[in-house]
Amino acid sequence: MTVAQEVEPRWLDEDEMRAWRAYIVASHMLEYRLHRELQEGHGISHADYEILVRLSEQPGHQMRMSQLAVDVASSKSRVSHQVARMEAAGLLRRIGCPSDGRGVFAVLTEKGFDQLKQAAPTHVEGVRRHFVDLLSREEQEVLARVFDRVITHLHGDGD
Amino acid sequence: MTVAQEVEPRWLDEDEMRAWRAYIVASHMLEYRLHRELQEGHGISHADYEILVRLSEQPGHQMRMSQLAVDVASSKSRVSHQVARMEAAGLLRRIGCPSDGRGVFAVLTEKGFDQLKQAAPTHVEGVRRHFVDLLSREEQEVLARVFDRVITHLHGDGD
Repeated sequence: MTVAQEVEPRWLDEDEMRAWRAYIVASHMLEYRLHRELQEGHGISHADYEILVRLSEQPGHQMRMSQLAVDVASSKSRVSHQVARMEAAGLLRRIGCPSDGRGVFAVLTEKGFDQLKQAAPTHVEGVRRHFVDLLSREEQEVLARVFDRVITHLHGDGD
Repeated sequence: MTVAQEVEPRWLDEDEMRAWRAYIVASHMLEYRLHRELQEGHGISHADYEILVRLSEQPGHQMRMSQLAVDVASSKSRVSHQVARMEAAGLLRRIGCPSDGRGVFAVLTEKGFDQLKQAAPTHVEGVRRHFVDLLSREEQEVLARVFDRVITHLHGDGD
């Protein structure tokens, strides 16, 4: 044994590979399809739509930028660029934190909220048609359990 | 009834929403984490890594560009830009189709194949740690079945 000796990676076996490949291929196809439906129907990207959803769920339709980055699983700099584009399009505004002066908040505008309300039926129809309606109740339950576990793991794993 | 009457969207119920939200949040977090590990460890994006994997699995390490776009669930123009960047980095080359003159092929270079071999252990370790090893065999089986169904649906649904 030398220090430099490499450990053989634990490659996936056939069943593990089947689960992983099905998941990764499906998730990319699904992301692309939902994005295209929003883009073609409402001129909005799936990434921007997700930001509008997150803001709409908050009290006062506003959220700290750093929390927004965590919630959409993106880097602060990437979310910062995205929010700047969305502000230029009139979908949200950025404001300084009113209470403690720390950080910057993103606030949904009326135009952004209207955009979200217009696009939501298209999005939910796509989510049903390409995903939810293809699953049994038991399968939905397994997926909720599995992906909640993944989220808990990733939140706790040195993010 | 008038033609213009709108149909109320079929919003998700609580269980459906739980499955969908867990899936979409986890998949974005997982994508971001795997991307970051490849980027920090090997200076390669997860999207570029996926292209290298697809090419490495083909006879002669080559693939028609249009098929590559289908396989990574992206538009032809987006894959075209990505492949141009990867060619500039020396990871692949583009060549005209030798047999019938139709279309353009992407071919893995030696540098690209080396890059893939160096990054693969990091990637498989991330896939295990953040996903596969968190699932029981039964859960892996359910996910393989569910996501194969989603893939079949999306392939057949006016792509």
